[in-house]
Amino acid sequence: MIHLNLDTLFALTGRGLARRDVFSSSKAVASLIQKVQSREQGFLDLPYDGGGSFFKRGLPFIRSARKKFRHIIVLGIGGSALGARALARALATNDTGPSLHILDNVDPELIERAEHDVDLRKTLFIVVTKSGTTPETLAQYFYFRKKMEESLDNKRARDHFIFITDPKRGYLRGVALRDGIITLDIPENVGGRFSVLSAAGLLPAALVGVDVKKLFRGARRAVQYFFETNSKKNMAFQLARVQFLLQQKRGVTITVMMPYSHALTGVSEWYAQLLAESIGKSHTRSGEIVHAGITPVSAIGVTDQHSQVQLYNEGPFDKFVLFLETRRSRSDISVPKISEKSFDFLSGVPFGDLMRVEKRATESAFVRFDRPCGSVILERIDEEHLGELLVMLEGSVAFLGEMYGVNTYDQPGVELGKTLTKKILRAGL
Amino acid sequence: MIHLNLDTLFALTGRGLARRDVFSSSKAVASLIQKVQSREQGFLDLPYDGGGSFFKRGLPFIRSARKKFRHIIVLGIGGSALGARALARALATNDTGPSLHILDNVDPELIERAEHDVDLRKTLFIVVTKSGTTPETLAQYFYFRKKMEESLDNKRARDHFIFITDPKRGYLRGVALRDGIITLDIPENVGGRFSVLSAAGLLPAALVGVDVKKLFRGARRAVQYFFETNSKKNMAFQLARVQFLLQQKRGVTITVMMPYSHALTGVSEWYAQLLAESIGKSHTRSGEIVHAGITPVSAIGVTDQHSQVQLYNEGPFDKFVLFLETRRSRSDISVPKISEKSFDFLSGVPFGDLMRVEKRATESAFVRFDRPCGSVILERIDEEHLGELLVMLEGSVAFLGEMYGVNTYDQPGVELGKTLTKKILRAGL
Repeated sequence: MIHLNLDTLFALTGRGLARRDVFSSSKAVASLIQKVQSREQGFLDLPYDGGGSFFKRGLPFIRSARKKFRHIIVLGIGGSALGARALARALATNDTGPSLHILDNVDPELIERAEHDVDLRKTLFIVVTKSGTTPETLAQYFYFRKKMEESLDNKRARDHFIFITDPKRGYLRGVALRDGIITLDIPENVGGRFSVLSAAGLLPAALVGVDVKKLFRGARRAVQYFFETNSKKNMAFQLARVQFLLQQKRGVTITVMMPYSHALTGVSEWYAQLLAESIGKSHTRSGEIVHAGITPVSAIGVTDQHSQVQLYNEGPFDKFVLFLETRRSRSDISVPKISEKSFDFLSGVPFGDLMRVEKRATESAFVRFDRPCGSVILERIDEEHLGELLVMLEGSVAFLGEMYGVNTYDQPGVELGKTLTKKILRAGL
Repeated sequence: MIHLNLDTLFALTGRGLARRDVFSSSKAVASLIQKVQSREQGFLDLPYDGGGSFFKRGLPFIRSARKKFRHIIVLGIGGSALGARALARALATNDTGPSLHILDNVDPELIERAEHDVDLRKTLFIVVTKSGTTPETLAQYFYFRKKMEESLDNKRARDHFIFITDPKRGYLRGVALRDGIITLDIPENVGGRFSVLSAAGLLPAALVGVDVKKLFRGARRAVQYFFETNSKKNMAFQLARVQFLLQQKRGVTITVMMPYSHALTGVSEWYAQLLAESIGKSHTRSGEIVHAGITPVSAIGVTDQHSQVQLYNEGPFDKFVLFLETRRSRSDISVPKISEKSFDFLSGVPFGDLMRVEKRATESAFVRFDRPCGSVILERIDEEHLGELLVMLEGSVAFLGEMYGVNTYDQPGVELGKTLTKKILRAGL
């Protein structure tokens, strides 16, 4: 079980929130749940339908692919990369399976390095684009498809590609039909940034040893309390309510996610897209101009204590810091016994405990500086806890969108840039 | 030469700035320069004194160390890690020299992985702490010192360590004297976050093939225009003035640094510390309570067009986006010729040009959405341009601190957390 601890927020004297503000009536929660349901989005169904048929169509493929390929390269950007990276960074087992490279930029130096680092003949390319038309991803695909056809024959090259895309639409569907390339679905009603528990996140993760069935066990737990109308039992609701109220009542416009664990930094990056694209909207659904949005910042403990915490403690009162803490570490190495008197406090301390103590100290300092913060506490980092955490965060963003009255699921503000890119390229540089 | 382009900012109709506001009188600039000088900080001297004697004492060591060691592990955090990473990520040559690992956290999983990834008998540890007492860095040092003494004999273990610290103070000085460990200086009047052009940044960078003399050529250029009282010729002043005015007049409290190049992402992380710790202060020098601070956000093009740009275009008007653009790429790979009609615009396009076009398109969209942005343009990524960029940014933060009237060079807001950490550890967990 994960746990949301808001005691530090309630403890503030000036700029915190009161329990009674955060814990709302069942009626209010039920009304929000109903609104989320009325959007007919599929992300809360994924934990129950095998990730949009991934269990049926993708899983059987995993065992042989893990033997056949030494390298996996994901070609995808935004929601087509961030979920896979969050899962892999937290959970990939350093065993005998293939290495994973997620190529989420068209930077030529990155592309060349990936090409240099792998043996193409032993590489599987997973091309991920919900729309099937993302230019950056297709540019990479065209590049590597040609490379593969040059190093292998045409037919064998095809066996090194898998597509993950919309079940019906998009350019890749046509290619898949023509060339007989295995293609897995992102369900129509699941947007890119909510697709981590579809094939987009699951296939790369499973290929590097993540146990997706255990992931789903945690995910289903989070779906269950998403539908809980008692706000004390609904973490997703509480988190959204805190972010909303802090912005409305305290002018807090930034959410800093700060895991005390390198393994969870992919979760912060994934959440940064989820929060930014879902809530950052100029209009409400009813057409009112609002310029809503909470700016996500990714920090990491203890590292950013030496980079960002000075600002967090003394700067403007515009941040809510959400710590991610793990109760137990997967590594038990310790600082050795030290005879130096001035460092006695470090002597024999397990590094995992040092992380936890520094988190507690940072959090206590925040409270004294009247800075709002809270913690998501994971008993440990494993599949169940990750599945629960990701779905809890998706649920909280879904709630938050309804609180602001915006369309959580579209991204109209990026169309202009896309159009201009095509226009400039067609006009010649 | 690097170049600061603010045309996109001046082009805004509602929320930009006027040229006459940004380009100030020589008298105003001269007064700020004088204030910065009066602080007697050493970072602007480093490009003229061989990086605080690094050229004399560190450089002779490089050639033999590059032959002797296969791996370099930097033990350091905050300013003791970020400068080295910025230089190495941008400039390390993928040649026959040693690999570089920067261990800037006490996360036990990271420490174990580094240990697993290297051959300790062929590893050099660079222990970097300005104060010589940073607990996290010393905890790592104690750990690896013991490991090395277990795998080698005591005397030989010492040859695998170099210290970089204050010339006089701190625990490591004593150890160095006792054990005869090579020790390089961070000059007394250079703070950690301004130390990239001292041994702290230079030694790791030089060991992975960065030409530090060329770096200094660019750095000196930036020092020269830092002292230019004609604001039209002083990029560092202009950038600071823009950030200050946008905050004062437009409520812009966030600076997003957005390089269109993976190689420059280390620069954003380095700048995030520089900006946050230097300006994020509760009090002015004269004791007035201000809670000043600009929150740094690191984004990357084109990737974050698919994650953050929706928020930047439609969300709150609280951001200034500073693009980093390179005119020429170090890789010339292209999208192949494509016969598909719907993707004709990608056909044959060099990936580097695709990056540049997407940057232009994103920037044009920002202007249409009335979002303030500017660009630092590098002709290419090389030592000269990096040296100039880093010192220009240091200079701009120095100016910004004087505009706000805060102490740019201290970090009083992190002391409480440090004290609490020791207290909790001494009390037992």
